[in-house]
Amino acid sequence: MTSRQISRKQDPGPDDLPPTAWAVLGLLSFPGERTGYELKKWADASLRFFYWSPAVSQIYAELRRLESLGYAASRRSGPEEPRTKRQYAITEEGRAALAEWADSAGDTGPPVLKHPLVLRVWLGHLADPERLRERVEDHIARTRGELKEVRDALARAGGVADWAHPQVALRWSERQHLAELELAEAMLADLDGLGTPGTSTTLPRQSARGPLTQG
Amino acid sequence: MTSRQISRKQDPGPDDLPPTAWAVLGLLSFPGERTGYELKKWADASLRFFYWSPAVSQIYAELRRLESLGYAASRRSGPEEPRTKRQYAITEEGRAALAEWADSAGDTGPPVLKHPLVLRVWLGHLADPERLRERVEDHIARTRGELKEVRDALARAGGVADWAHPQVALRWSERQHLAELELAEAMLADLDGLGTPGTSTTLPRQSARGPLTQG
Repeated sequence: MTSRQISRKQDPGPDDLPPTAWAVLGLLSFPGERTGYELKKWADASLRFFYWSPAVSQIYAELRRLESLGYAASRRSGPEEPRTKRQYAITEEGRAALAEWADSAGDTGPPVLKHPLVLRVWLGHLADPERLRERVEDHIARTRGELKEVRDALARAGGVADWAHPQVALRWSERQHLAELELAEAMLADLDGLGTPGTSTTLPRQSARGPLTQG
Repeated sequence: MTSRQISRKQDPGPDDLPPTAWAVLGLLSFPGERTGYELKKWADASLRFFYWSPAVSQIYAELRRLESLGYAASRRSGPEEPRTKRQYAITEEGRAALAEWADSAGDTGPPVLKHPLVLRVWLGHLADPERLRERVEDHIARTRGELKEVRDALARAGGVADWAHPQVALRWSERQHLAELELAEAMLADLDGLGTPGTSTTLPRQSARGPLTQG
């Protein structure tokens, strides 16, 4: 929808751009030029932890959109490179638009959280208690793996002045993953406290007030 | 897309249903019959905190879909009611399908988190430090309000055996909101630690390797 508006080139103001476009422009706002592939790698070590895990195709789509708006520019590598690459950089216009978005857009809005594990726990009256426990333990193992990735990213960004704010975001993400682990452990304890395995599946079934008929 | 598949009635198995359909069927899986409006109120006091904040229109759309699948049934209130209402309940078939989904679907998958505030902090090199601080403080105030709502929901569900698992999910959400507050406070401290206000806006601009040209 938005991309169609933009391709019509009818004064595509910043309000027309989705946050994902700003996120890709944000990737470009740090020092240096990058290829789409490099942006993808960097998104995986930053944006992914608190906002968005873009596919390479999404990154290229946003780059095309940003370039058509004049917010990004690209250049092909010369014959000295073994393989032709296209490097992207933010333009002055793009930097101004991004700064305006970052500063002037209204309330940032609440975080959006979709936690499939908690959804399953909420429906735990329908689940086998052991299976549910396994799901929580799988989540703990996956979160530990992600915590390691956050810490690796933090180590790579460490000590570079230009990356001060990304480091604050990554430290937030490190703590967020530690909290996620504590939350999962506490939920396991709560589930264990519900009683012996099997109890929850013997709760009384729905007490219908009467037979339901269509119409 | 999915609803079109289903309206063709070509063996609409549980795999065709999005998690939001299961979530609404989940709302129906607890004791009692409910109107769409009651389901919306309950979603706002449960699902919203860890999965989804559905609009009333989305709830009705899912109810129609579930009814067409035979997973839910509805009946209109009789003339004794001052206003005509339609009450929905899960069917045996719906309960079996939901239980199969809850138990047998593979890995629940990682949580999806879109945190617009952390995105802004990550782009803090473009922001006015005071404005950024305000955003974090707004987030803290909003999170405190949500924590109160979670605790209210927990108080309403307290002590009812049928609501044991929803209580575990709500306790998770209570702790998650407390963690969110701690994370925001720690991020404020990190931002303050970056130096005196204004410093971050004087970081060197992008060190371009050369003028960028199209093509």
